[in-house]
Amino acid sequence: MAPGTVVFLGDKRVEQPTVSAISYGPSNVYEGVVATPEDCRGWLGRAAVTWINVEGLHDTEMLQRVADVFSMHPLTLEDIVNTSQRPKLEDMGDSLFLVLKMLRRHPETRAIVAEQVSIVLGKDYVLTFQEIDGGLFNPIRNHIRAGKGRIREMGCDYLAYSLLDAIVDNYFVMIEDMDDDIEQLQDAVLKRADASGVRRIHAFKAEMVSLRRNLWPLRELVSALEKSESDLISDGLSPYLRDVYEHTVQVIDSIEAIRDMLAGTMDIYMTSVSNRMNEVMKLLTAIATIFIPLTFIAGIYGMNFETMPELKWRYGYAAVWAVMIGVGVSMAIYFRRRKWM
Amino acid sequence: MAPGTVVFLGDKRVEQPTVSAISYGPSNVYEGVVATPEDCRGWLGRAAVTWINVEGLHDTEMLQRVADVFSMHPLTLEDIVNTSQRPKLEDMGDSLFLVLKMLRRHPETRAIVAEQVSIVLGKDYVLTFQEIDGGLFNPIRNHIRAGKGRIREMGCDYLAYSLLDAIVDNYFVMIEDMDDDIEQLQDAVLKRADASGVRRIHAFKAEMVSLRRNLWPLRELVSALEKSESDLISDGLSPYLRDVYEHTVQVIDSIEAIRDMLAGTMDIYMTSVSNRMNEVMKLLTAIATIFIPLTFIAGIYGMNFETMPELKWRYGYAAVWAVMIGVGVSMAIYFRRRKWM
Amino acid sequence: MAPGTVVFLGDKRVEQPTVSAISYGPSNVYEGVVATPEDCRGWLGRAAVTWINVEGLHDTEMLQRVADVFSMHPLTLEDIVNTSQRPKLEDMGDSLFLVLKMLRRHPETRAIVAEQVSIVLGKDYVLTFQEIDGGLFNPIRNHIRAGKGRIREMGCDYLAYSLLDAIVDNYFVMIEDMDDDIEQLQDAVLKRADASGVRRIHAFKAEMVSLRRNLWPLRELVSALEKSESDLISDGLSPYLRDVYEHTVQVIDSIEAIRDMLAGTMDIYMTSVSNRMNEVMKLLTAIATIFIPLTFIAGIYGMNFETMPELKWRYGYAAVWAVMIGVGVSMAIYFRRRKWM
Amino acid sequence: MAPGTVVFLGDKRVEQPTVSAISYGPSNVYEGVVATPEDCRGWLGRAAVTWINVEGLHDTEMLQRVADVFSMHPLTLEDIVNTSQRPKLEDMGDSLFLVLKMLRRHPETRAIVAEQVSIVLGKDYVLTFQEIDGGLFNPIRNHIRAGKGRIREMGCDYLAYSLLDAIVDNYFVMIEDMDDDIEQLQDAVLKRADASGVRRIHAFKAEMVSLRRNLWPLRELVSALEKSESDLISDGLSPYLRDVYEHTVQVIDSIEAIRDMLAGTMDIYMTSVSNRMNEVMKLLTAIATIFIPLTFIAGIYGMNFETMPELKWRYGYAAVWAVMIGVGVSMAIYFRRRKWM
Amino acid sequence: MAPGTVVFLGDKRVEQPTVSAISYGPSNVYEGVVATPEDCRGWLGRAAVTWINVEGLHDTEMLQRVADVFSMHPLTLEDIVNTSQRPKLEDMGDSLFLVLKMLRRHPETRAIVAEQVSIVLGKDYVLTFQEIDGGLFNPIRNHIRAGKGRIREMGCDYLAYSLLDAIVDNYFVMIEDMDDDIEQLQDAVLKRADASGVRRIHAFKAEMVSLRRNLWPLRELVSALEKSESDLISDGLSPYLRDVYEHTVQVIDSIEAIRDMLAGTMDIYMTSVSNRMNEVMKLLTAIATIFIPLTFIAGIYGMNFETMPELKWRYGYAAVWAVMIGVGVSMAIYFRRRKWM
Repeated sequence: MAPGTVVFLGDKRVEQPTVSAISYGPSNVYEGVVATPEDCRGWLGRAAVTWINVEGLHDTEMLQRVADVFSMHPLTLEDIVNTSQRPKLEDMGDSLFLVLKMLRRHPETRAIVAEQVSIVLGKDYVLTFQEIDGGLFNPIRNHIRAGKGRIREMGCDYLAYSLLDAIVDNYFVMIEDMDDDIEQLQDAVLKRADASGVRRIHAFKAEMVSLRRNLWPLRELVSALEKSESDLISDGLSPYLRDVYEHTVQVIDSIEAIRDMLAGTMDIYMTSVSNRMNEVMKLLTAIATIFIPLTFIAGIYGMNFETMPELKWRYGYAAVWAVMIGVGVSMAIYFRRRKWM
Repeated sequence: MAPGTVVFLGDKRVEQPTVSAISYGPSNVYEGVVATPEDCRGWLGRAAVTWINVEGLHDTEMLQRVADVFSMHPLTLEDIVNTSQRPKLEDMGDSLFLVLKMLRRHPETRAIVAEQVSIVLGKDYVLTFQEIDGGLFNPIRNHIRAGKGRIREMGCDYLAYSLLDAIVDNYFVMIEDMDDDIEQLQDAVLKRADASGVRRIHAFKAEMVSLRRNLWPLRELVSALEKSESDLISDGLSPYLRDVYEHTVQVIDSIEAIRDMLAGTMDIYMTSVSNRMNEVMKLLTAIATIFIPLTFIAGIYGMNFETMPELKWRYGYAAVWAVMIGVGVSMAIYFRRRKWM
Repeated sequence: MAPGTVVFLGDKRVEQPTVSAISYGPSNVYEGVVATPEDCRGWLGRAAVTWINVEGLHDTEMLQRVADVFSMHPLTLEDIVNTSQRPKLEDMGDSLFLVLKMLRRHPETRAIVAEQVSIVLGKDYVLTFQEIDGGLFNPIRNHIRAGKGRIREMGCDYLAYSLLDAIVDNYFVMIEDMDDDIEQLQDAVLKRADASGVRRIHAFKAEMVSLRRNLWPLRELVSALEKSESDLISDGLSPYLRDVYEHTVQVIDSIEAIRDMLAGTMDIYMTSVSNRMNEVMKLLTAIATIFIPLTFIAGIYGMNFETMPELKWRYGYAAVWAVMIGVGVSMAIYFRRRKWM
Repeated sequence: MAPGTVVFLGDKRVEQPTVSAISYGPSNVYEGVVATPEDCRGWLGRAAVTWINVEGLHDTEMLQRVADVFSMHPLTLEDIVNTSQRPKLEDMGDSLFLVLKMLRRHPETRAIVAEQVSIVLGKDYVLTFQEIDGGLFNPIRNHIRAGKGRIREMGCDYLAYSLLDAIVDNYFVMIEDMDDDIEQLQDAVLKRADASGVRRIHAFKAEMVSLRRNLWPLRELVSALEKSESDLISDGLSPYLRDVYEHTVQVIDSIEAIRDMLAGTMDIYMTSVSNRMNEVMKLLTAIATIFIPLTFIAGIYGMNFETMPELKWRYGYAAVWAVMIGVGVSMAIYFRRRKWM
Repeated sequence: MAPGTVVFLGDKRVEQPTVSAISYGPSNVYEGVVATPEDCRGWLGRAAVTWINVEGLHDTEMLQRVADVFSMHPLTLEDIVNTSQRPKLEDMGDSLFLVLKMLRRHPETRAIVAEQVSIVLGKDYVLTFQEIDGGLFNPIRNHIRAGKGRIREMGCDYLAYSLLDAIVDNYFVMIEDMDDDIEQLQDAVLKRADASGVRRIHAFKAEMVSLRRNLWPLRELVSALEKSESDLISDGLSPYLRDVYEHTVQVIDSIEAIRDMLAGTMDIYMTSVSNRMNEVMKLLTAIATIFIPLTFIAGIYGMNFETMPELKWRYGYAAVWAVMIGVGVSMAIYFRRRKWM
């Protein structure tokens, strides 16, 4: 298909795409649902900062109309609906375009699912596009409504930063959640070492690899944002962006730590499998080895030689029992002492 | 042989090399077969963009004549026919020369086959050289004919970009195809772990390595094209090239993911081989261990001592059976409980 | 929560946060406890250098008041109380802000615990924030009091350097301590190879990884400090900072050496486990193999054929014993010679 | 020994060092043997390009005289005779000095042997120093004599490039040769897995490592040559050098591919060793396990109880045989079905 | 302890520290022992170059006096006596300060011991500090005395280069020595594979790692020296320093090669251990498997059934022997053919 064709590649997550708007400044907040994409124009300029959030990306015709209102580049819209993008930052001159990944765990498989969030930062507006609103931005909405923190005094760039910060902070929650799961897996593996353990370790590894793949470009993105010479980012935002940068680095560190932990789990698994096998083999072989000489003794006195004086001894049978018990017990003791039984 | 000697190094893929041409501009499209290389001259300038496609690289004499028409550097032609080139971009001043690899799967062995495509981008023409036309460029031809998308309004650079984009998009198809094959292999390996599995894993690994080797220079090529200061690339192409760049990075990411998956498959294979072996050994040893004490008991009462009171007991034989069944069953239960049987 | 919110993330380590101050110059030293944060103002300027140390980070309201006295950036205070920071250096214009990690071993688990120390270096003051005072800075206090070394003649930057140097030197102590523990582990692993050994090796590995993760940013921090063009760092401090830099590099080298040592320990562990298993199996199998032919011989003469001439020989029984002893002993000798027993 | 002392470090390869010269320009070629080093002076300037080739490096006194004629730096001569140099390029101002490695396979051990070739590129001469003339430069001599290709029209730099190209092209031959050997090794390893296979794999690995060590500096050398601002390299040579550069990169790629192939061979070797062992153990254990219950049954009826009704049955013996055959066969079938036999 | 405190950290190697001096120029050489540190002043200026060598670093008071004569920075002296320094180069403005490591093998343990050599290069003097004089610089002293080579014509920088060159050349001797030891180890490991082999391999690995750790900074040092813009290094020294640089790179290459060799030795060791184990197990199991069916046959005819026609056959016993020998021999042949015995 021709480049720039807008085709939604994800699953349809919401029945009806909705567009909502918040306009705020130090002293007032307006909030509402936007009926048609063209109504966005009316919201712009109502207050210092206008945040328009689009939930649901399958109605490409409607998105195209939103894109027309904000005169977006055709490829930008293509990127918004192509939900397999890597995180990236594009400076479009009069706006900055950010593609981000929001993580959540699948309720059933517990696998990490990445949902794409696109942010367009303009001079007096912030546009966000989500497949589904996971509620991650609700605290920010509440801060705006309540005028808590600095957000009402700051501009569009601070709002974009707050959204970014919310996403990165959510990564920590994910990572900690994973960490608990891996510790449980480690315990399970120590108890019962079957092939399913290996598969789960590798499933976790694969998730870590895919997380890392999302996080490296995110780190670059934040770093590029901090160093950006765009007029859309004010100088005062620098320490905040540096802070987000530090957080992404910490997330990456945690992922590396988990990878090491998984490698360790694999090693422990392997050792524990082979140790258990060794234990079994040693015990079984020891038992076999004890009985082999005894059976030999029994075999001796099962021979049919005419002259076998022991057979005629009065306590011959008892003596043989004594010898056999003696040999068996002393071998058992010997094996036990050397930890083979 | 002397440098600059034009010798075709591939297999002859088509009977007769063919040269075809499309000239197009916003309002008109001319299309036809070029009889002799020198006829290319007539096509140039007929419309804004002229795309000449050469299929079949074994007729070096004819290629030399094409090269003369477009006054190409001797080494350029050498690179076109030497089909073991790595992807590369050369700025020849009045033209850009791109060597690319087009992937397809061998219909029988299912191995990935790379075919070389060379693109020469001039001021008003695009030359493409293929060993065989795999049909990959047909959608672009159709877009030109139908005037769909932007292609008719854009220049030669956009055509070159479209060709590049078609090739990179085809990589995604290849990768997904491979992905399915590897998942099948993983299942096969879990069911039946023989040496052929290891060889197939390594065959896939080798393919991934060779793909990666083609893709790293491709990534550099696209990046160099984007940063190129050549007049042949207009500024408006930048976002499109950035888009292709993102795609190559995504392909590389997928390949890395597949490599990790293959490493995981190898681990699972190893664990499953050793687990199965352990299961066998444990079961067999358990059976042996059960019978060894029983045989010992039988051996006892096979002894020929004159005084063995048990032999004369009325129910001695039955008692021995009872003891042996008791010992055997309890050992079997014990082994089963400890999962050794 | 909104960015810039000051929330203490560590454990409360001291009952009551305390603020102490030392003011010193070449000729005089003043020392005392600061009752309220605002009293800090009185200490500034009393002598060339004023060092204010805050112990205990859970009273965020008090810290906010300290921050106000020194007009610190809101994010700086956030970083001070968020004790999961990576080491970093921030140039705030009129002050330098350093986050460092002080290592100590947990008295019971012997695990390495990292405690955060933040240093704010101003024009005529050095502020330090600690969760708990581990006594690491006492020698510096004594040098100041006694006027030993250069410290009394030098400025605030030299004090900050001395604090940094004390922290890095303490790393050497930690590393040597670890080194001893790992050597003990290596000996233990050679003696008794159970799964707990693997777990301890991996615990050490994890600690090394986390240490390395703290040290790489520390190295960057020191390097950035040396190259810093801030007026707060005088030129004469350069050789001292280079010295600290060399020390951090040496610590990193030692950690790499320990990692190699741990990898070696793992290899030795694996070899020793498998060697011991092999020894056991070889001995047991050898014993079994000796008795199997003997039991066979006994079985032969347990057969009930009517014509078995040996059974009637006078010394048949003795001869069989002789044969069996001969076979058994020669096999034992053979096995012993080939080191299987 | 003092730096700059000229001591030949290789083996004496030719009886008598020989110096030969070719002077050529577009229209004429002079060729001959140079009797004494000082005669070189007579050859210079006879035509546009003079190529003097020295074969045999053990006569350091003669080499010193050659060096004096061309006023070479003492360290240059030291490098020429020290045949353990890494490939390198030195710009000596009025000449460029290249140290290269020419590969050939030892006729008996089939090991790769690297022989040092030094090239001194002056304004109107090219000096080459070889331990032994392997005939690699003969095609170039023939091109010069026959006036084939561009060489007669081009300057000294093109001659140096041709020599470099001949050496790099020869690497491809070597690599392909190795490739065949490794494929043979792979087949051999699959058939018979003994320790000699591992040693051969590691011998190949070591060769690949040493090749790579020669090739990385070669790649740098060619790259430096291309970027060189020396007047001795004309601008028109750039595409040719880029071509050689591409070739060295391809050789490096092939070596990496071979390394991966060797790693795969090792894996296949390991799997095949362990699989074969497993097969043996499974079969042997299965046989043992079949006979153990049978022997137990035989043991039962070898007991001497007075009351064993079965012993008196008419078809007791036949029944026991039937039972034993039944048990044995059904176990064999079971084992065969589960692929243990 | 306060920074800049001069404390010797090594072992006291010589009874009495000695200071010796050589002053030389093109035409004359003065040589002698320096009685008190302050006498050094008298030696300076006597000829073009004055080399003062201090052997023994435990007398810090004396070293302080030497430092005062040459007005060295306090940290420089600290570095000289702290013998755990990494190789480094410091430009002190009027002097260059080099810390180097001189390698020798411990006479008993054969472990590589690194001894620290510090060189201070001034305008007309070279200061060297050694723990113990290993005789490495004697050839240089002899060259000076005899006026052999260029040394008498050259300045202080050439002397410093000669010292550096002597140290690097000595590394080659060490490496070759190690190489021989490792080849011996490889042979030993192939003959007798016990845990001590693994420990020795790891000991060598650890040495290689520690060597590499000394060599990387050395390489940087030499490179920095070559690129140094200090007036103390004349332009003519450049080719000599490049030469030393090449040598350090070669040493690093050799170390990498040895590391690969050690990895190969480990692989061969592992394979040889497991092969030997497999051989043992196969042989033992084969023996057991041959006798098990034979014992079964013997057991058959040990049964006490009343009707066992074979028992009454005349040649029954002989026939059983024939069968058993037949079975045993044919199994042995079968096992031998399949290489299990």
